[in-house]
Amino acid sequence: MSQTGSAPAYVVGIDYGTLSGRAVVVRVHDGAEMGSAVHAYRHGVMDSVLAATSEALPPDWALQVPADYVEVLQQAVPAALRAAGVAPESVIGVGTDFTACTMVPVTADGTPLNELPGLSTRPHAYVKLWRHHAAQAQADRINRVAEERGETWLPRYGGLISSEWEFAKGLELLEEDPELYRLMDHWVEAADWIVWQLTGTYVRNACSAGYKGILQDGAYPDRGFLAALNPDFAGFVEEKLEHPIGSLGSAAGTLSAEAAAWTGLPAGIPVAVGNVDAHVCAPAAGAASPGQMVAIMGTSTCHVMSAEVQREVPGMCGVVDGGIVDGLYGYEAGQSGVGDIFGWFTAHFVPPEVTEEAAVRGLSVHELLTEQASREEVGAHGLLALDWQSGNRSVLVDHELSGLLVGLTLATRPHEAYRALLEATAFGTRKIVETFAASGVPVTEFIAAGGLVKNKFLMQVYADVLDMPISVIGSDQGPALGSAIHAAVAAGAYPDVRAAAAAMGRVQQKAYLPDPARALTYTQLYEEYETLHDYFGRGGNDVMRRLKALRRSARKVREVSA
Amino acid sequence: MSQTGSAPAYVVGIDYGTLSGRAVVVRVHDGAEMGSAVHAYRHGVMDSVLAATSEALPPDWALQVPADYVEVLQQAVPAALRAAGVAPESVIGVGTDFTACTMVPVTADGTPLNELPGLSTRPHAYVKLWRHHAAQAQADRINRVAEERGETWLPRYGGLISSEWEFAKGLELLEEDPELYRLMDHWVEAADWIVWQLTGTYVRNACSAGYKGILQDGAYPDRGFLAALNPDFAGFVEEKLEHPIGSLGSAAGTLSAEAAAWTGLPAGIPVAVGNVDAHVCAPAAGAASPGQMVAIMGTSTCHVMSAEVQREVPGMCGVVDGGIVDGLYGYEAGQSGVGDIFGWFTAHFVPPEVTEEAAVRGLSVHELLTEQASREEVGAHGLLALDWQSGNRSVLVDHELSGLLVGLTLATRPHEAYRALLEATAFGTRKIVETFAASGVPVTEFIAAGGLVKNKFLMQVYADVLDMPISVIGSDQGPALGSAIHAAVAAGAYPDVRAAAAAMGRVQQKAYLPDPARALTYTQLYEEYETLHDYFGRGGNDVMRRLKALRRSARKVREVSA
Repeated sequence: MSQTGSAPAYVVGIDYGTLSGRAVVVRVHDGAEMGSAVHAYRHGVMDSVLAATSEALPPDWALQVPADYVEVLQQAVPAALRAAGVAPESVIGVGTDFTACTMVPVTADGTPLNELPGLSTRPHAYVKLWRHHAAQAQADRINRVAEERGETWLPRYGGLISSEWEFAKGLELLEEDPELYRLMDHWVEAADWIVWQLTGTYVRNACSAGYKGILQDGAYPDRGFLAALNPDFAGFVEEKLEHPIGSLGSAAGTLSAEAAAWTGLPAGIPVAVGNVDAHVCAPAAGAASPGQMVAIMGTSTCHVMSAEVQREVPGMCGVVDGGIVDGLYGYEAGQSGVGDIFGWFTAHFVPPEVTEEAAVRGLSVHELLTEQASREEVGAHGLLALDWQSGNRSVLVDHELSGLLVGLTLATRPHEAYRALLEATAFGTRKIVETFAASGVPVTEFIAAGGLVKNKFLMQVYADVLDMPISVIGSDQGPALGSAIHAAVAAGAYPDVRAAAAAMGRVQQKAYLPDPARALTYTQLYEEYETLHDYFGRGGNDVMRRLKALRRSARKVREVSA
Repeated sequence: MSQTGSAPAYVVGIDYGTLSGRAVVVRVHDGAEMGSAVHAYRHGVMDSVLAATSEALPPDWALQVPADYVEVLQQAVPAALRAAGVAPESVIGVGTDFTACTMVPVTADGTPLNELPGLSTRPHAYVKLWRHHAAQAQADRINRVAEERGETWLPRYGGLISSEWEFAKGLELLEEDPELYRLMDHWVEAADWIVWQLTGTYVRNACSAGYKGILQDGAYPDRGFLAALNPDFAGFVEEKLEHPIGSLGSAAGTLSAEAAAWTGLPAGIPVAVGNVDAHVCAPAAGAASPGQMVAIMGTSTCHVMSAEVQREVPGMCGVVDGGIVDGLYGYEAGQSGVGDIFGWFTAHFVPPEVTEEAAVRGLSVHELLTEQASREEVGAHGLLALDWQSGNRSVLVDHELSGLLVGLTLATRPHEAYRALLEATAFGTRKIVETFAASGVPVTEFIAAGGLVKNKFLMQVYADVLDMPISVIGSDQGPALGSAIHAAVAAGAYPDVRAAAAAMGRVQQKAYLPDPARALTYTQLYEEYETLHDYFGRGGNDVMRRLKALRRSARKVREVSA
């Protein structure tokens, strides 16, 4: 590293999550986290009502307000500097990461459409958060047409393009609000929009472009394909999407005077090219080598891994050359609901006796249910769940799927259902690990990161279900640390991300070891999970899709008659 | 009727339910209910712990204490007389009904085994309540052997003998506690045991013997069959079961001096032959004609109907000549969990915000959830449930089955799951009605009785799901009124049950009419229900059975290691 002398240098990493943004001040030479601050988005996630009009949103929508992201720069960055006790002048670079695929429709100068006069009442003018799942019909069409035409990029995404991604959401915008589509000059990843706000320059990051934007071997899907989706969509790439690409770890530009005023940081310091929250966790966990899978477990889980070979893995989110670190193929897979599912259950299906006991004992409901669940043997609850409450974005890639719970009896209690949900997410992870192995990209080490690693019982369940040791990232703010690592590279403190990761990242090796007896029983249960997975997910019975279709039409009846 | 003059005569009907006994004083000439009283069983249902030892019971057990039944005679009958303001001397007869198949192991004089010195600590010495479901292994063997041997009685029970019934529970007793089995002189229906306490005479009622005791055309299963189940079981019928049969509506004997002292009723008045709670509801609802199906909807639902023809209906509980009224074939079907399922959900899966709102508004949780659920269109919750939380005793007759909920999303709320459970029980009823029709025993009128009829939304769901008008019994204590009708016949006030039913029973015709649009959507959902019903219930995927087996072995591990 280039940093010498007695005055240490620092970088700031800023992680944009689903509900809040977090800034962390990190020491460049060893990755020490000096201080951090969190700022919650003023409008959170708009998934039932549009704040500006108080009107109901359709099912499966999830919007955000871009100005909320700027507030994070104004609030969290100065607060983190104060918490760290670090002089702003010693900060040499800034890096950011974002949820993805989260899309902002903007004009030529980057103004979000919802900020234009008269457009704040139009739902399509807002940010479409990653978990906006209303573009499934468009995704289905993209997949069908791509398969019919034999598009060569399709296998790079496990054979399926997600409704969460740039093309499905873009096509949804065109077809549901064509006027806004025409007003939009760029369809921008929020990861790049925030860098644009920091630097005044729009640079499209290689990670989002590859994983979410179907950029493969330097090319996007062609006009013929786009026209086959919808004639008015033929120009989508040229008109709305195409833009110069920035490689990971390079500088997108320097901090503008305006952004310096917001953040309190020195104008002119390098700002790293944008990144995706999950992907930056890999260097933060020191996992930049082939076979090291990092699972970032929070409201959802994202799995990232590098490999020397390029393979087609069914249902993976994507394989992108240099998508995580330069010189390796970056693989991504994911589970759309994990912590979200546990949170939903504890918020809505736990009775007063449990919440009261938790309050009396000073525990969270999660902690109490986990404690109760951990006392039982594997299989003692007699339950099995499918973890698709938020759809499935791994292997099946189908957001019309839904959650299932089987084995219910009059003796079933909340902590048992809760445990079944924890286990279902572990089975979902095993499905991904096994699919990678079967496709010639074996997972040799499993490293957990994200907010859920603090649940030790959950980590042990994962070790037992995967029948693999689980290593745990050594930071509890992995994405922000990963962004700081990218900032250090962009600032020239390290030659590349791998070198910076070696110095600044950290991991607790084999923190959880599998128990052979439990692993054996879990394998039985996993086989049951696989059978239901295929029955409900691969056409044995499309009841989940039909229930969702009926739900939509029933709610329309309601709206019309209301 | 034979009653004339100015001093009206009365009868007392006593209904033994799952949790309590209820006595009703009824005027003989018109069935007017003069007064009633309820007495809860001191020990309730022992399904987790044996009260005498505080030791845990295995899964699926459900025991009761016989002395609790006698307390009902001592408490509820005098209280009902007081409430009615009726002089005991004007009571001319007593009738009773009981849950079934609920079995009491007794010595030759009727003493329950748990009352013998030293036996109160032995779980098998107690009453096995109808919903004791631990004899499934024995039921499976009975069904397999009966099918292999081509036993002619098997089709009379829809091809399947339930684990709830006399033979399965008797075989369980032999195999799990052979010493107690040897000590037992009679294996007695609680329905007959209580009449024995009232009269001093053991008479076996035709209804229980036919439906639960496999008595067909005057004969029980033969020694060869019993020996094939277990050589030590060969003498079961002759030694433990066989006993003179009393026909419904006849007198088993007269009230003994001891029972007169308990109840405050005159010694020497006729006591009707015992009966089953569900079956006595048919005359109480004035439904003694072919094609009139009475559904007694409480913790579970029992469906009874008479017909002129004898047919084999898959999965029916049984067809018994004169099993409901003389001169017709009585059919019985059932759903093992209905109100139990709603109660389980509200007790364990409803969050504080709901229970608090219910408390503030002075509603029960059931009422609040029903109100919330009733505001939505059919299908708007996107859910589908299988109503097998307490197993399935209709069509499939398999207590190894379990409940299922599919269509869960992060937007699913408790009232939606609750509604899906209500609907699932209606689909279960439709399955029964359709199976009867397909077997040549059409249901021409559907009459609801039991505690759940007070839920108007539930009744409307049943009308919409069945696409049939729902009539409702005019009494809210149907079984007790039905028992009173039998008492009047036993006392000679009417020539037979049909005549008494015409004078004393009552029904509100077509209280709920189906809505064509809702019925159409429910038919779509019912088709989905049928597909899952067959997949999980007919061998497509036996995951429910395997989960229950794993649950049992996991709990054994726990016990051993504890």
